Amino acid sequence: MKKKPRDAGRPARKKTEKDEVLYGVHPVAEAVSAGRRNIKELFVAGKKPPARLLKVVERARKKGIRVRYVEAAELEEMAASSFHQGICASVGPFPYSGLHEILGREGESREKPPFLLLLDSIEDPHNLGALVRTALCVGIDGVIIPRDRAAAPSPTVSKASAGAMEHVKIARVTNLVNAIKELKERGIWIAGMDARADAPLYKSDLSVALGLVVGGEDKGVRPLVRKQCDFTVSIPQVGPVNSLNASVAGAVVMYEAFRQRGA
Amino acid sequence: MKKKPRDAGRPARKKTEKDEVLYGVHPVAEAVSAGRRNIKELFVAGKKPPARLLKVVERARKKGIRVRYVEAAELEEMAASSFHQGICASVGPFPYSGLHEILGREGESREKPPFLLLLDSIEDPHNLGALVRTALCVGIDGVIIPRDRAAAPSPTVSKASAGAMEHVKIARVTNLVNAIKELKERGIWIAGMDARADAPLYKSDLSVALGLVVGGEDKGVRPLVRKQCDFTVSIPQVGPVNSLNASVAGAVVMYEAFRQRGA
Repeated sequence: MKKKPRDAGRPARKKTEKDEVLYGVHPVAEAVSAGRRNIKELFVAGKKPPARLLKVVERARKKGIRVRYVEAAELEEMAASSFHQGICASVGPFPYSGLHEILGREGESREKPPFLLLLDSIEDPHNLGALVRTALCVGIDGVIIPRDRAAAPSPTVSKASAGAMEHVKIARVTNLVNAIKELKERGIWIAGMDARADAPLYKSDLSVALGLVVGGEDKGVRPLVRKQCDFTVSIPQVGPVNSLNASVAGAVVMYEAFRQRGA
Repeated sequence: MKKKPRDAGRPARKKTEKDEVLYGVHPVAEAVSAGRRNIKELFVAGKKPPARLLKVVERARKKGIRVRYVEAAELEEMAASSFHQGICASVGPFPYSGLHEILGREGESREKPPFLLLLDSIEDPHNLGALVRTALCVGIDGVIIPRDRAAAPSPTVSKASAGAMEHVKIARVTNLVNAIKELKERGIWIAGMDARADAPLYKSDLSVALGLVVGGEDKGVRPLVRKQCDFTVSIPQVGPVNSLNASVAGAVVMYEAFRQRGA
């Protein structure tokens, strides 16, 4: 008899799908206001928290979330970070979205053509946070990240995104190439960022149904992923150094697409 | 007899104007290739450095710079950072530029209208580094920063800029308002970034002789500086969080100006 695969019969529960501790004003505030996470308890430092914390506490209480006052040292330990700003929340796992949730039902009418961000493969949680923050500001429908060898949503990413991560739909896929094929079947144009691109950013039509592929910090878009792109775009650059930070490069392209789509 | 002040009789040497230790491949490589700093000595870890370090070593040797091989622990101590990537350089102080060097002589013919970045007041060295890096990529003529309550060029900033800081002209002024008045007298339009701006970014003419003012992380452009701006621009944003990271916001505006100027 053939051996059963390890997680046959029940949905795989990955290592990352466990409770975690959000820290910092923005991540906690945005988790409360987004209402997507199961928030178990709020922890606030000191007896006289500043107004900006009290606002979060009040909003949380209205939603029936328990609030506990603790010592700052306790927050530091919970958060495993000194950047907690006097507030933490113990929450359920990050609520990943499926591709279908990001795309909506086939044939469903939409106000604007789809606008997706695909990350291949951002490794630095701060870059992931910054990209997710910008994605939210330009109204991206969702972010698609690979499951392996890439930064994934975490309290650090939520902090780096100023809480934007709590609002953005993020799908994690096993195989980015397959996900791209699925998007293409749904009529989405895939644009890869590449220094040796077909056309500079400003000569490319980014107002279409669009999936923007941003490459990782060191190696950019991987060849197998690049092969699936309908076209590639480069960011014009001058000067002797000639390289932008990955989160800045992503922001410049997202904003150019946003501009072309009517901002 | 009154004691002489320590450095009477010679020009005041500011606290920041002293030798420092650059660390990391890009800062050291760019300092060598820019040739602006007095590089006293290069320090490289281990006996078999990887190719990318050897390239820097070779370039440095050609310029007559002494190279010493040391233990990695020694580099960590010199750099006061573990992000040295196996290479450090002991260098003279950062070579600030004067406003006149950035602007060129009055009446001098130039290929393009001036394009300056004014930072009021960026406090995070990583944001300063990221902004300087983007500034170099869009061909900014120079960056103007206030002397007080703002991040200043340092080895950390050079690292965050991927070495771009070693090439960019940076002027540090005591009074940003006075500097702006001087720029206006030279026919430069001052555009301040402001969420409550006169016009969105994409409806503003940024192809003129331009000084872009980017505000600090928390408070944005200060009222006294804002008052001096010829016009203000905002970055369109949607969604519930509505705020971009300072270095991303600066990049989006710099790139829109770059696009309008013919990229």
